[in-house]
Amino acid sequence: MPHYTWSHRVSFGECDPAGVVYFPRYFEWFHEAMEEWFDVELGVPYAQVLQRFGFPAVRTQAEFRAPCKMGEIVSVELRVGHSTRSSLQLDYRVLGPSGGLRATGATTVVMVGVVSGEADHFRSVTIPEELRQRIDAFAQGLRPA
Amino acid sequence: MPHYTWSHRVSFGECDPAGVVYFPRYFEWFHEAMEEWFDVELGVPYAQVLQRFGFPAVRTQAEFRAPCKMGEIVSVELRVGHSTRSSLQLDYRVLGPSGGLRATGATTVVMVGVVSGEADHFRSVTIPEELRQRIDAFAQGLRPA
Amino acid sequence: MPHYTWSHRVSFGECDPAGVVYFPRYFEWFHEAMEEWFDVELGVPYAQVLQRFGFPAVRTQAEFRAPCKMGEIVSVELRVGHSTRSSLQLDYRVLGPSGGLRATGATTVVMVGVVSGEADHFRSVTIPEELRQRIDAFAQGLRPA
Amino acid sequence: MPHYTWSHRVSFGECDPAGVVYFPRYFEWFHEAMEEWFDVELGVPYAQVLQRFGFPAVRTQAEFRAPCKMGEIVSVELRVGHSTRSSLQLDYRVLGPSGGLRATGATTVVMVGVVSGEADHFRSVTIPEELRQRIDAFAQGLRPA
Repeated sequence: MPHYTWSHRVSFGECDPAGVVYFPRYFEWFHEAMEEWFDVELGVPYAQVLQRFGFPAVRTQAEFRAPCKMGEIVSVELRVGHSTRSSLQLDYRVLGPSGGLRATGATTVVMVGVVSGEADHFRSVTIPEELRQRIDAFAQGLRPA
Repeated sequence: MPHYTWSHRVSFGECDPAGVVYFPRYFEWFHEAMEEWFDVELGVPYAQVLQRFGFPAVRTQAEFRAPCKMGEIVSVELRVGHSTRSSLQLDYRVLGPSGGLRATGATTVVMVGVVSGEADHFRSVTIPEELRQRIDAFAQGLRPA
Repeated sequence: MPHYTWSHRVSFGECDPAGVVYFPRYFEWFHEAMEEWFDVELGVPYAQVLQRFGFPAVRTQAEFRAPCKMGEIVSVELRVGHSTRSSLQLDYRVLGPSGGLRATGATTVVMVGVVSGEADHFRSVTIPEELRQRIDAFAQGLRPA
Repeated sequence: MPHYTWSHRVSFGECDPAGVVYFPRYFEWFHEAMEEWFDVELGVPYAQVLQRFGFPAVRTQAEFRAPCKMGEIVSVELRVGHSTRSSLQLDYRVLGPSGGLRATGATTVVMVGVVSGEADHFRSVTIPEELRQRIDAFAQGLRPA
């Protein structure tokens, strides 16, 4: 399965008194990987998508295998999972500097409409055709033209 | 099932450009609810536990039903779920000011040993007897003496 | 000088590998103290203010005297400092559970207009009369009616 | 003055309901820039320094000139300011994608000893000779050999 890789230096402030990454930070990493994937790989800036749509997570989970430590360069791999007309599951794997698996996770996001400047979390909409095509092309291993 | 309730005013900084709570924050809330539960309800300060043990999350998940907004006073309910000799599942529900369900979640934490000042994430240990008794008493609806 | 006190249990996730609060968190505390001051003391919900105005910080500083540790209940005192037609300096003191001074700080915020749903950071506006009166009453030690 | 540049894509989660970076995040950026400067430029991994020393901030400040927005690639420039036997002032400038100044700041950090695994915030120590030499070489525009 094709994947997008987001690289990250683990910072002091992401680590907790146990000296390892505080687990809610993994979900921030998943989100940042997705944002960079939109901007760099799909060629559809995430900030631009949010001018017309909301894209809230409806469910997420993670399993933590081994801790990440300050100063390590970790990789977060994003893969496209199951999708519907308006939703998208994104699967994540966090790898240490030597490729060892640190964590896995997944988030399901749903595209929703925006009413008077606010996302309407209860009205899902169809993912726009152009965005859908780019996501499908990525999932099939095709690079943007 | 008995539960512990942690109350929280949703802050500006927890909200994202969509004007609602950024979802990784829910996992911070779950953790803060657990910490206060240790300190206030179990009578075993969480900071004190961490002097002798590590207590990492090995898995967590959440479902988001409705967004939380800046300034709202939300409640996070913690319930004790399935447990083993060394692990504990904690179940969470996030409720809005009027009691509407906003999110549910669960985290499984494992007690591990500390070696030379560092938690050893690969050596689970038995939850200490006194702590176990207090958790069981809570789960059975008994208040600490 | 009259002050508003915001209380807070220092959480695990706010602490860094050195076991004490990571200093950027103090600025979050200052902001949360200000938000609660608006909501509870001034009687003007901060979220409501932001529907019509932006209120960005233009400058901030802090001095750290002694660290705050996980599990401590700290107090953040807010006092009104120098103000102009459109700006407000807020002074903060962070105290430990026994009243010892941990940190001091100040933030200057400026009221700005909102254009097409976005704060215009370059167009300061006059602080609305009713809000100004409530701030002045607080600074003079008068409680809201 | 020689400077080190840390680059960063502004993430969704760093932005607030006003759609721009929440100001406490700038202090996280300053710290991350310093960490990468240690790791990459000085050749003294920050995580390694913290095994023998604490390096707490004793004072910090920032001025915000123009907001940073989601998706922007910003640069944080770090310069070495005034230093003493045990302390170091680091000056920061945040620049937007086109080089426009967004914020300036400075943090003074002090090297302290570690006693039984904990930084002793009240006992400053001399910055180790090798680290001092590398900092001075950087400040004079000399690259590490």
